[in-house]
Amino acid sequence: MAPAKVFGPAMSTNVVRVLVCLEEVGAEYEVVNIDFSTMEHKSPGHLARNPFGQIPAFQDGDVVLFESRAISRYVLRKYKSSNYDFLREGNLKEAALVDVWAEVEAHQYNPAIAPIVYECLILPALRGTPTNQKVVDENLEKLKKVLDVYEARLSKTKYLAGDFVSFADLSHFPYTYYFMKTPYAALFDSYPRVKAWWESLAARPAAKKLSTNMVFQ
Amino acid sequence: MAPAKVFGPAMSTNVVRVLVCLEEVGAEYEVVNIDFSTMEHKSPGHLARNPFGQIPAFQDGDVVLFESRAISRYVLRKYKSSNYDFLREGNLKEAALVDVWAEVEAHQYNPAIAPIVYECLILPALRGTPTNQKVVDENLEKLKKVLDVYEARLSKTKYLAGDFVSFADLSHFPYTYYFMKTPYAALFDSYPRVKAWWESLAARPAAKKLSTNMVFQ
Repeated sequence: MAPAKVFGPAMSTNVVRVLVCLEEVGAEYEVVNIDFSTMEHKSPGHLARNPFGQIPAFQDGDVVLFESRAISRYVLRKYKSSNYDFLREGNLKEAALVDVWAEVEAHQYNPAIAPIVYECLILPALRGTPTNQKVVDENLEKLKKVLDVYEARLSKTKYLAGDFVSFADLSHFPYTYYFMKTPYAALFDSYPRVKAWWESLAARPAAKKLSTNMVFQ
Repeated sequence: MAPAKVFGPAMSTNVVRVLVCLEEVGAEYEVVNIDFSTMEHKSPGHLARNPFGQIPAFQDGDVVLFESRAISRYVLRKYKSSNYDFLREGNLKEAALVDVWAEVEAHQYNPAIAPIVYECLILPALRGTPTNQKVVDENLEKLKKVLDVYEARLSKTKYLAGDFVSFADLSHFPYTYYFMKTPYAALFDSYPRVKAWWESLAARPAAKKLSTNMVFQ
């Protein structure tokens, strides 16, 4: 069978969330760029994959999916093995803790860190707009509250869901990687356990490989 | 073993998301109220369950969880049977479609419908604040775009993930129920397949039982 296709720019955060899962399990895949400058994300071809006209979309044979966290779960489930079990669905309690911290990423961490990355990196690079410092400052305060909780959690377990790397950790990779390229990277120095956790994630071969593409001009 | 405990006001949307799953699978449970008027959600006892000081939290023996969608998945996984298989984790493609449409609920539907419910029902009842019509109008426009996608989807499958009721459908219950109590309920008349889908969900015994508690003064 042809390798799975991931549709979207390879440096986009939500695309990288899927790619890091594919790399971690050693799956074959190909990235098909979607050109936002020609509105390709709103073309009939792309809308057939993702009716909301967003990226990423994904195709593996007759399975066509969208929403990065759903695609990630599909990949991690399909390539699950004793070496690569990032969802832990065979263990009721572990699976639940993976889900809890994956939801925390989506509903607590991401809403605080994403606007900072947008204001400091993405919007200046893609649209030439200056950083809105008020948005940055408000979200730094939110992020600090989230990191307080993470620091306490990571004093009890090595990774977020337990003493094992899970989807919950992997899902933090894209935005945290870009956050570390902003002027606020030193914020993590105040959270030594979070910083050690992040460094161990960033050092993984999948993360290192993908990060070579993750450069804003 | 003692029945599972759900911590939070029984009429709260995110609590109801968990309760509808418990009811659907016929699990025993008890609701333990958390009194926001005395800041109980920020008390050490509750913070030990949910470090973000939000509701719901959940306890089943030594399993302590938070984040409503993670708790819901735990409940649906624990009580899975041939009659009650709302996650479809045994089928790679079906599970992926459940995840896609559960993510759509969390990241497309909820961000549009929740502010309308807050402005029209929750804030006036709990804080006596008047409805901010600008917020309502903006989110009605967002909701219409989401419902366009749902109408197309539900012309192909009976429920969101396929021809079976799944967690993706159940997760829409709390906010949609309250939306139907706002002055904008007739919006659904323009989306006949969405309306039929909603009516079939609202008619389920679990939904009918829980809705008796879902009344704002």
